[in-house]
Amino acid sequence: MSKIRVTVWHENMHEKTDPRVLALYPNGIHGTIKGFLDENEDMEVRACTLDDPDQGLSDEILDNTDVLIWWGHMGHALVNDDRVQKVYDRVQDGMGLIALHSAHGSKIFAKLLGTRAWGITWRESDDRSLVWVVEPNHPIAAGLGRYIELEKEEMYGEPLQFPRPDEIVFISWFEGGEVMRSGLTYFRGNGRIFYFQPGHETYPSYNNPDVRKVITNAVRWANAGTKPQQPLNCPPPVAPIAPKNK
Amino acid sequence: MSKIRVTVWHENMHEKTDPRVLALYPNGIHGTIKGFLDENEDMEVRACTLDDPDQGLSDEILDNTDVLIWWGHMGHALVNDDRVQKVYDRVQDGMGLIALHSAHGSKIFAKLLGTRAWGITWRESDDRSLVWVVEPNHPIAAGLGRYIELEKEEMYGEPLQFPRPDEIVFISWFEGGEVMRSGLTYFRGNGRIFYFQPGHETYPSYNNPDVRKVITNAVRWANAGTKPQQPLNCPPPVAPIAPKNK
Amino acid sequence: MSKIRVTVWHENMHEKTDPRVLALYPNGIHGTIKGFLDENEDMEVRACTLDDPDQGLSDEILDNTDVLIWWGHMGHALVNDDRVQKVYDRVQDGMGLIALHSAHGSKIFAKLLGTRAWGITWRESDDRSLVWVVEPNHPIAAGLGRYIELEKEEMYGEPLQFPRPDEIVFISWFEGGEVMRSGLTYFRGNGRIFYFQPGHETYPSYNNPDVRKVITNAVRWANAGTKPQQPLNCPPPVAPIAPKNK
Amino acid sequence: MSKIRVTVWHENMHEKTDPRVLALYPNGIHGTIKGFLDENEDMEVRACTLDDPDQGLSDEILDNTDVLIWWGHMGHALVNDDRVQKVYDRVQDGMGLIALHSAHGSKIFAKLLGTRAWGITWRESDDRSLVWVVEPNHPIAAGLGRYIELEKEEMYGEPLQFPRPDEIVFISWFEGGEVMRSGLTYFRGNGRIFYFQPGHETYPSYNNPDVRKVITNAVRWANAGTKPQQPLNCPPPVAPIAPKNK
Repeated sequence: MSKIRVTVWHENMHEKTDPRVLALYPNGIHGTIKGFLDENEDMEVRACTLDDPDQGLSDEILDNTDVLIWWGHMGHALVNDDRVQKVYDRVQDGMGLIALHSAHGSKIFAKLLGTRAWGITWRESDDRSLVWVVEPNHPIAAGLGRYIELEKEEMYGEPLQFPRPDEIVFISWFEGGEVMRSGLTYFRGNGRIFYFQPGHETYPSYNNPDVRKVITNAVRWANAGTKPQQPLNCPPPVAPIAPKNK
Repeated sequence: MSKIRVTVWHENMHEKTDPRVLALYPNGIHGTIKGFLDENEDMEVRACTLDDPDQGLSDEILDNTDVLIWWGHMGHALVNDDRVQKVYDRVQDGMGLIALHSAHGSKIFAKLLGTRAWGITWRESDDRSLVWVVEPNHPIAAGLGRYIELEKEEMYGEPLQFPRPDEIVFISWFEGGEVMRSGLTYFRGNGRIFYFQPGHETYPSYNNPDVRKVITNAVRWANAGTKPQQPLNCPPPVAPIAPKNK
Repeated sequence: MSKIRVTVWHENMHEKTDPRVLALYPNGIHGTIKGFLDENEDMEVRACTLDDPDQGLSDEILDNTDVLIWWGHMGHALVNDDRVQKVYDRVQDGMGLIALHSAHGSKIFAKLLGTRAWGITWRESDDRSLVWVVEPNHPIAAGLGRYIELEKEEMYGEPLQFPRPDEIVFISWFEGGEVMRSGLTYFRGNGRIFYFQPGHETYPSYNNPDVRKVITNAVRWANAGTKPQQPLNCPPPVAPIAPKNK
Repeated sequence: MSKIRVTVWHENMHEKTDPRVLALYPNGIHGTIKGFLDENEDMEVRACTLDDPDQGLSDEILDNTDVLIWWGHMGHALVNDDRVQKVYDRVQDGMGLIALHSAHGSKIFAKLLGTRAWGITWRESDDRSLVWVVEPNHPIAAGLGRYIELEKEEMYGEPLQFPRPDEIVFISWFEGGEVMRSGLTYFRGNGRIFYFQPGHETYPSYNNPDVRKVITNAVRWANAGTKPQQPLNCPPPVAPIAPKNK
């Protein structure tokens, strides 16, 4: 059985300017995520950044990616439109996409969902956050308890301006009084998309064993869309199946 | 235009044994709800209780009810199965149902949703609760701000064991750390159902202007299902429409 | 890895009175379904009927069933309520249920969905029917082409009075002019339910390779709910997680 | 009460080259649709085409439109991207959009849904088509019978590559053997979108009284999103609501 080819894409900007981020993620957020995914025998993981040739999103890379993980924030506007289009096309053709934290402000997230970027309320904060499992039997929630506990996270809150999710796996509680549907699936073309809220760069959320479990589960879930039954393109006209009554 | 015929049904038990409840709701919870709904010119409201003939759920009453509001808790098991069946039939035929607070443990709620009664986690508590509007343009949320603030409420929490809701209007935050999808719609047959979590008997939630607004909006929303296009029963066989190719 | 324990339950009535049915299904519809499922190494299949002790639905059988397949029609009213309750409880606890053809009129289907039995339009007919795959990447549609072709089927048509499905896998076309959402999933408690329309007793639908593929796929899909993360019952009260601000 | 400001936008191309189209719609498809909507006292209707200044989609027009009706086919690529962006922004802000027939290939439909244009199977045909009402109580289906009968229509068929619809109002049957979910709602930002399949330019579908009823109903339904509770933009950070436990 062939391995799931995972690409972890990261803008890799906060690490360069904020020593707190580098302290938490010495190899960058991408390095950390690649690190814990590497422990899975069914995955083959590579990490890419905005600094790489073709912004780390070359045709060659994307054509050989089953599941793409995306972390971006400050650099959303820097991603070239043709790279966004390529990711979009790959998702429509069946590549999985896992959009982390502030990826809700990215061009690719907005384009795939048909929503405006940044469509939430928010507050830079060090709130305690509890990420509740609301669909305990969803494959993305496998192996978790009733909730994930994060000592500190940035608050993202309702109302979401995203389209109604196809499935809701998690809802987050924030100490400051807010809630957010924070683990969401969307089906687009042949592809599967998972959005997951935790992961502000100044907190160690990606070192949390439960967060790691969610991302690992999500890779396997999103990969299930990558072997499409049918290519989805504007199809040629078809012939009638039933004889007509003339 | 004819008025919406609303029946507020209440088991009316806590009021008899707990002076705190009677202090908050001198005419009973049913009297309080009837009281604020009476202010709407498009509604004609009656209040009934378990103590009434036919448990306040006679055929005559239900056949002349467009929207039924239900509050029950201790007395769930006392409601006769044939009355439950009658309410069920009326909802399938288009009567609206608004299930309040612990109505999630009632026979009628379980029967209409296809779920077990009591399917939540809970904690008797005096938690502060914030009820977030997650679908601001839903008619049931009309006129509200970003959230409803309740000084004290009983905690009901995820995971819900109810079927996936057809629409989610509210999600509640509880001071103790929990969240709950707390304002839910379900379509059943020709009828519309709205579940709303606030309303523990020892707290003044039904005196809260925003809670009153929600229930008032929900009456109008649930009434929209009461003029069904088509009776829904096991229909007689139909004739083919298209000629067949023989 | 342990096998999926499948129980094929059949009322087994038409076979006794209609020689056409016996000619198509010499071992009964249950025998035919057991026959083709037996070819799967990951399944352990038993067939039971209404004639068996405890109506073929004993506690012992149901407690040892991961996925239950249900075919009934004439005998719906004969199934004892306590057996219906037991099946209902098992589904809430995670047993999968595959409801075939006229199972939409059964007590268990109505009870789990919160709908009235028989909620469709219909016509006894020998219509050609095309069962279109509308979600090609759903696991239940794996290995199929664009549609399943059935030379003759009974017409079941819209509007469905069932609750809005959680997922729609198939929509059927009937020669006489009707359509039906004919492959539907519902999640209830910890259990997964799949309804599939083809299978009138006087037509050889269960000998069709594509129909067999659908049922085989559905067994595996429905089994995924059988190892619940959490028992779902009215839970004991929980302790608060977050300290409160008093 | 102020009127619903409806703009009927049409590329107006087939009428210029195909005499059959002009014979059916002497004032263009836009003129026909404006004509029957004009009969409603609660609507104020204008018709615009690609030939008009700013392609009939000026900021002034769109800022004064509550519900936009869109018919395009050959000219999809001619619509300027900045006009598409303006329509997109207006829908996110609450303008309703009714996308007719081949509008599924338009830039605006693809952009709002997050799908590829043209994502269906099709066949230029003169099939008889029956458009079944699958949600009889939906406001868009008000006043219809069980189905709409169209003597001739172009076939559009499953599988749809669009995202799972938020609601399904109609499913179409085609004489040649296909089916299509043909009346679909989507919620995007503050706006409501309705897609409706009938309306090939060489058939008189827009002269059909039932089709006219659907479009009229859809205008009123889509208008309900136009008075948003809350502006939806990337919001400024908010202050915490609950005191934190430090």
